[in-house]
Amino acid sequence: MSDQLHIANVRNVLIRLEETIIFALIERAQFLCNAPVYTPGFFGDALGGESLCGFMLRECEQSHAKVRRYTSPDEHPFFSDLPEPILPLLGFSQNPLIPNAININTDIRSLYQETLLPLICRAGDDHQYGSAAVCDVACLQVLSKRIHYGKFVAESKYRSPTPALEQALARQDADLIMAAITDDAVEQLVLQRVTQKAGTYTTELNRNALSPTVAPAIITGIYRDWIIPMNKAVQVQYLLLRCSR
Amino acid sequence: MSDQLHIANVRNVLIRLEETIIFALIERAQFLCNAPVYTPGFFGDALGGESLCGFMLRECEQSHAKVRRYTSPDEHPFFSDLPEPILPLLGFSQNPLIPNAININTDIRSLYQETLLPLICRAGDDHQYGSAAVCDVACLQVLSKRIHYGKFVAESKYRSPTPALEQALARQDADLIMAAITDDAVEQLVLQRVTQKAGTYTTELNRNALSPTVAPAIITGIYRDWIIPMNKAVQVQYLLLRCSR
Repeated sequence: MSDQLHIANVRNVLIRLEETIIFALIERAQFLCNAPVYTPGFFGDALGGESLCGFMLRECEQSHAKVRRYTSPDEHPFFSDLPEPILPLLGFSQNPLIPNAININTDIRSLYQETLLPLICRAGDDHQYGSAAVCDVACLQVLSKRIHYGKFVAESKYRSPTPALEQALARQDADLIMAAITDDAVEQLVLQRVTQKAGTYTTELNRNALSPTVAPAIITGIYRDWIIPMNKAVQVQYLLLRCSR
Repeated sequence: MSDQLHIANVRNVLIRLEETIIFALIERAQFLCNAPVYTPGFFGDALGGESLCGFMLRECEQSHAKVRRYTSPDEHPFFSDLPEPILPLLGFSQNPLIPNAININTDIRSLYQETLLPLICRAGDDHQYGSAAVCDVACLQVLSKRIHYGKFVAESKYRSPTPALEQALARQDADLIMAAITDDAVEQLVLQRVTQKAGTYTTELNRNALSPTVAPAIITGIYRDWIIPMNKAVQVQYLLLRCSR
């Protein structure tokens, strides 16, 4: 089984995903907002009613589905009309999660297009539509992975519950579960580490001063205001399902 | 027209591509070499005789071809059996290059699989085949872009030739052209900047010491031994064509 699916590796996977997220956001930030990329129908009927971003995301998911990406419990598609895998399925016999259909990618896509893009990209249109959409796909996929990894975090907490979590689970109370899984000190450590990394990774771009890149505080804010809260929302959904079984 | 196609922006494009190349190599380096990904037929007949890496590269190019990626003069496909664009073609009326069919992606793919992968990844197999192949596609595409950008570099030099280049072009002599376009001082500056950036971008990964990442000296070596020479080979091919018109 992949190391990424071991409960013992949850923390390491989350830390390593920080690099991937920051890289992806920096790459997208080199292009302007490019509103036409997110406007369904802007390019006529050729994209089947989708925006360019949606079209390229679906095309990517269709090819990745063929090589069984979405059979892995840490992967979640944005689209449901995907082809069957053409490779033999892996066992995932040690999948640590309980069966579940939790998938908040619709929310993630809206958040990304409506809220995050204007934060990370300068306003305007540079006509780099294809390049921007390729970056969007990378951003959306890694944000989805990081946020849905809450399932693994939740399973880990379920297996070694604090007394507060045990009580909350016994009452199947979402608010109590949310309070029990929240650890402000740990969240502060994550935010400090992300700030540090984002600072490091934007240093060189700013040194060469070719064009402004995304500010470290923006990346930290995205973690604080959306990635961490949405990850915790997934945890609560998963734990409610877990304790009802 | 895209800024990326303006001759005046050649240097800035090359500098910004350094980030994309370094990020892509670092992302691939988190997985092991995973030889099965590059073995045609390893996954049976489902991939049409291709390796998993080749299959995913072709799938990606097929979807990007639909949104006209390879109609842009700075993009070069690895595969030739690609669908027609479904979006209306852009004019590229200010395409600064002369018509040409220079494409050394076959060499780039061999180089990547046989030489670069063992340099950037630790030996072994972690079964992260899909994730590795996704990273491979990103690496191959940005290496191809950087190397073929030699066409724009060459066009820029053709428009403002040094006396040595004028002589070399008049004689249509590949060796003389190679000598005339070679500027050791500029190459040293590129290598210094890449070393600096690679050091910065691997700092955080090493700080958290989750797993070893690619060493900055490896990335510099890839630039010195392959990216710069292959870029120059493209320049020479383009200039030979340019001066024969």
